Amino acid sequence: MKIAILGGTGEQGPGLALRLAMAAEEVIIGSRSQERAEQVAADLNAELGEARIRGLENPKAAEAAEIVIMTVPYSAHLSTLESVKAQVEGKIFVDVSVPLDPENPRRMKMPPAGSAAEEAQEFFGPATRVVAAFQNVAAHLLRDPRHPIDCDVLVCGNDAEAKKTVMSLVAKMGLHAYDVGAAESARVVEGLTSILIRLNIRHKVKGSGIRLTGLPR
Amino acid sequence: MKIAILGGTGEQGPGLALRLAMAAEEVIIGSRSQERAEQVAADLNAELGEARIRGLENPKAAEAAEIVIMTVPYSAHLSTLESVKAQVEGKIFVDVSVPLDPENPRRMKMPPAGSAAEEAQEFFGPATRVVAAFQNVAAHLLRDPRHPIDCDVLVCGNDAEAKKTVMSLVAKMGLHAYDVGAAESARVVEGLTSILIRLNIRHKVKGSGIRLTGLPR
Repeated sequence: MKIAILGGTGEQGPGLALRLAMAAEEVIIGSRSQERAEQVAADLNAELGEARIRGLENPKAAEAAEIVIMTVPYSAHLSTLESVKAQVEGKIFVDVSVPLDPENPRRMKMPPAGSAAEEAQEFFGPATRVVAAFQNVAAHLLRDPRHPIDCDVLVCGNDAEAKKTVMSLVAKMGLHAYDVGAAESARVVEGLTSILIRLNIRHKVKGSGIRLTGLPR
Repeated sequence: MKIAILGGTGEQGPGLALRLAMAAEEVIIGSRSQERAEQVAADLNAELGEARIRGLENPKAAEAAEIVIMTVPYSAHLSTLESVKAQVEGKIFVDVSVPLDPENPRRMKMPPAGSAAEEAQEFFGPATRVVAAFQNVAAHLLRDPRHPIDCDVLVCGNDAEAKKTVMSLVAKMGLHAYDVGAAESARVVEGLTSILIRLNIRHKVKGSGIRLTGLPR
């Protein structure tokens, strides 16, 4: 499957790209700067020992892909959505954004829609199927594929088939996904990220996460 | 410590009472009906083999206690807060409430304050220290103290000392607590409950829960 990772040169993008490429997916790193996208793709390909990742500007990356993942900081959420609206129409759009309070990342500052994922779904309209995922997985753990990740991926969105597709990608990356409901569940899933950031700071660790218990795995 | 459990005859109350009594705390079951409170206390004492729990009407239970835990269904949230306002002043008030949508328990219907715990803190004012806890622990697991519970307790509230007191009670009950921030974190913690209910229904289990990972225990 052709998968674009918009904002793919940021914190969480390279790790997602690497793990998806290792799962034999065709990955396109998207960035505002094509040069930067190509650079990160080249670095990751060197690590893979094979050219499986390429770099493009965000709209071109979105255009070329079947599934589009977006990992930009929340301050760039709406502007990035705008820049790829036409290119993602009819596709699955995976929103990894977390509306942290810019003045305090241990707090949320939710948009009027309720969450970043709901905002994206509202912005795109029903033709694009928004799925929220990956918000709770620490970037540096994703980036180190030799280490297993002790964190489940909570997946939500309004389209059941789209969630299934994303959950199978999660499984290919060696993580376990749970379908936690419609897009509005993103209020909880995104909110958990600020709680994990708070716990990271308090306990002086970098990679706290969450596991669901008492469920089939 | 003298601990009242208001709504203690409902789903989560008896398990909390039993585990607190086994941890050598003095427990008072509160209910709208004194007779019903006494009956549940008698049943639990029979199980304990010792009379460590008594039953009273909610306001009298709150009056007699140093810490007041409330586990009523959300439909009775405000009316129960009103019924004990004077009796809890200056005390620690542990809110276990979850504002589930009455028409669909897999969804939340948050009050204007943002969460049940914030609503309680707003209602009582600063003299009473509200702490939110225990919302994610399945009632039937609490009720069976021979079984360890694979679920962490996320504790939040605006008063650090009050949270510490509640966290030490959680530890005495054999559970692990994490301080996840101010009262507004209850939006996430309460919201997790509807996600766990959804997962219970979908996976046909009764006791899904949550563990935080990557942190010291």
